[in-house]
Amino acid sequence: MPDTTQAGAPALMSADDLADLAVAALRSYGLPEDAARTVSRVLVLAELFGLRTHGVARILEYGERLAVGGVAAAPDIRIERPAPSIALVDGANGVGPLVGASALDAAMEGAREQGVGVAFARGSNHFGPVAPYNFIAAEAGFASIIGSNATTTIAPWGGKDARLGNSPVGFGVPNPAGRPIILDMAISVAARAKIRRAAAQGAPIPEGWATDRDGHPTTDAKAALDGFLLPIGGHKGYGLALIVDLFAGLLSGAAYLTHVKSWQDAPDQPQNLGHFFILIDAARLGSTEWLAARMADFAAILHDAPPADPEKPVLLPGEIEMLSYEKGLREGVALDPSVRERLVERAARV
Amino acid sequence: MPDTTQAGAPALMSADDLADLAVAALRSYGLPEDAARTVSRVLVLAELFGLRTHGVARILEYGERLAVGGVAAAPDIRIERPAPSIALVDGANGVGPLVGASALDAAMEGAREQGVGVAFARGSNHFGPVAPYNFIAAEAGFASIIGSNATTTIAPWGGKDARLGNSPVGFGVPNPAGRPIILDMAISVAARAKIRRAAAQGAPIPEGWATDRDGHPTTDAKAALDGFLLPIGGHKGYGLALIVDLFAGLLSGAAYLTHVKSWQDAPDQPQNLGHFFILIDAARLGSTEWLAARMADFAAILHDAPPADPEKPVLLPGEIEMLSYEKGLREGVALDPSVRERLVERAARV
Repeated sequence: MPDTTQAGAPALMSADDLADLAVAALRSYGLPEDAARTVSRVLVLAELFGLRTHGVARILEYGERLAVGGVAAAPDIRIERPAPSIALVDGANGVGPLVGASALDAAMEGAREQGVGVAFARGSNHFGPVAPYNFIAAEAGFASIIGSNATTTIAPWGGKDARLGNSPVGFGVPNPAGRPIILDMAISVAARAKIRRAAAQGAPIPEGWATDRDGHPTTDAKAALDGFLLPIGGHKGYGLALIVDLFAGLLSGAAYLTHVKSWQDAPDQPQNLGHFFILIDAARLGSTEWLAARMADFAAILHDAPPADPEKPVLLPGEIEMLSYEKGLREGVALDPSVRERLVERAARV
Repeated sequence: MPDTTQAGAPALMSADDLADLAVAALRSYGLPEDAARTVSRVLVLAELFGLRTHGVARILEYGERLAVGGVAAAPDIRIERPAPSIALVDGANGVGPLVGASALDAAMEGAREQGVGVAFARGSNHFGPVAPYNFIAAEAGFASIIGSNATTTIAPWGGKDARLGNSPVGFGVPNPAGRPIILDMAISVAARAKIRRAAAQGAPIPEGWATDRDGHPTTDAKAALDGFLLPIGGHKGYGLALIVDLFAGLLSGAAYLTHVKSWQDAPDQPQNLGHFFILIDAARLGSTEWLAARMADFAAILHDAPPADPEKPVLLPGEIEMLSYEKGLREGVALDPSVRERLVERAARV
């Protein structure tokens, strides 16, 4: 691996070197080469998109659970096809991105054959951010809706007990002649990490981010940490979080709501998380030229909208991530030095 | 039709009588009996759910456009199947609920055969609320994701020009032994009608509902009417509105974004609205008993959550609508007297 360290700047690594490092680190926890390569692909994409908190640093977290037997390093993932367009994936408690990528493959296979493919995964774990899956699907020509359930952090609307996860959901539409449009979002107004940061600084949080433990709105960051994240749009976001769990957890055969175990409280227990993947083959809807022209026009209409602040042009969802991806491929990725050090240390054990 | 008028209370009508009245009124605008029956089914469900603004009163609005030739009374709706799981529906500028119900049928047919069925409709018009489609799907055993695009009322995030519709999207999961769970929502924080009401009363609106015409947040209801609705969760809601339009408008072959004509500004022009219907046959995922037990458990976990306000128990999405539906079937529907009068007047012309 070339040393790209520069004085005063974080080391830049090529995407290939980063992938090799991720693979080696994953293998140190017992993952077979193929599985490590699959997981690495998802996490390196996250890193390229600039989604650092969901990038290769997760290998170390996954590793803690692999080390205590909470996650299976070499799961026997099984795929059933109860209908031509449906795949049911039993992740056998594998690392989340391995189960996720297996289910994505199964859904793409169904979509290629039938026009639409849906995969439901159970027996899984944290599968990383959603955008990499939407991106892989879009690059292969598929529109996608993908989601996962998660450990409970959100109270039902009007309730005061965490019974819903901050379920991530992602949408993607392919663009044969340009960047796909990808929206990857969790259902809360703000991430818990932002509240943790405010609490550490003794700063208040904006109204609408969270409630205290009694379910009452608060701007006190510490009280918010004992309370619950607020979903976007109040009852609408509550509904969205619940729907994602119905599709990802209930219909998939996985755990749902409070049945989902916390990987922080019980790292040695299977979480039985669930995911869903809905893929549509855009090539069945019209020609490549037809889709490319419509996607270019769609983007132009939004980009041409006059901005409220002249300095800040209107962007499309996922545009920042796509620009970061292209720059990362060209120039390399600035990996957090401490993450790099720990991954290198793990990789040396293989 | 029995006269159920009571002194001092709005007339209660049975769902069957209401459907007959709706059919007759629709026929007065030139709809064939079958088509009128199909449209009536959607709008009467809306009325039963308590969604008055999207109920049978819409017949009079649709009628204005039918009268000026902006909508076709007897469209030649065509359905193509480019793949086993995909139906492309050309609504031929028919009344929205007729196109919508035709596409829903096509998606259900695909889902019954392949496990998943997706229908994209173009050449359509306002198709009513989404919940009736999710409900019909759920009653037939299908989980669903359904959406439509709409006339532009929302600015892109950071923009100051209406380029996105307040696109409605609905989700449903069937429950073999109880009420389905249905979430039907538009993407704005608040409906435009609420802002209109505040402006009429000279009252301010809450922060976060809307911007003025320059894209800056406002609490002035009148300024908000000249401005744009704000989406839930800021950039997240902007992303959701855009995704619904990508699926409902762009992928379907319909108009999208600013290409969608306003039915208020140009009632005599085809709108070329688009819709999408994604249906999954829940019976392929597990047994009826399996699904019923999981749905009962899911609902119980949420209903059992301690409420923040002891007077207000936690509800599931769609629960108010389902209770209203059951009551409406039992006791009849309290139709707005002026709407009833105008529908009766139309029905008399057949």
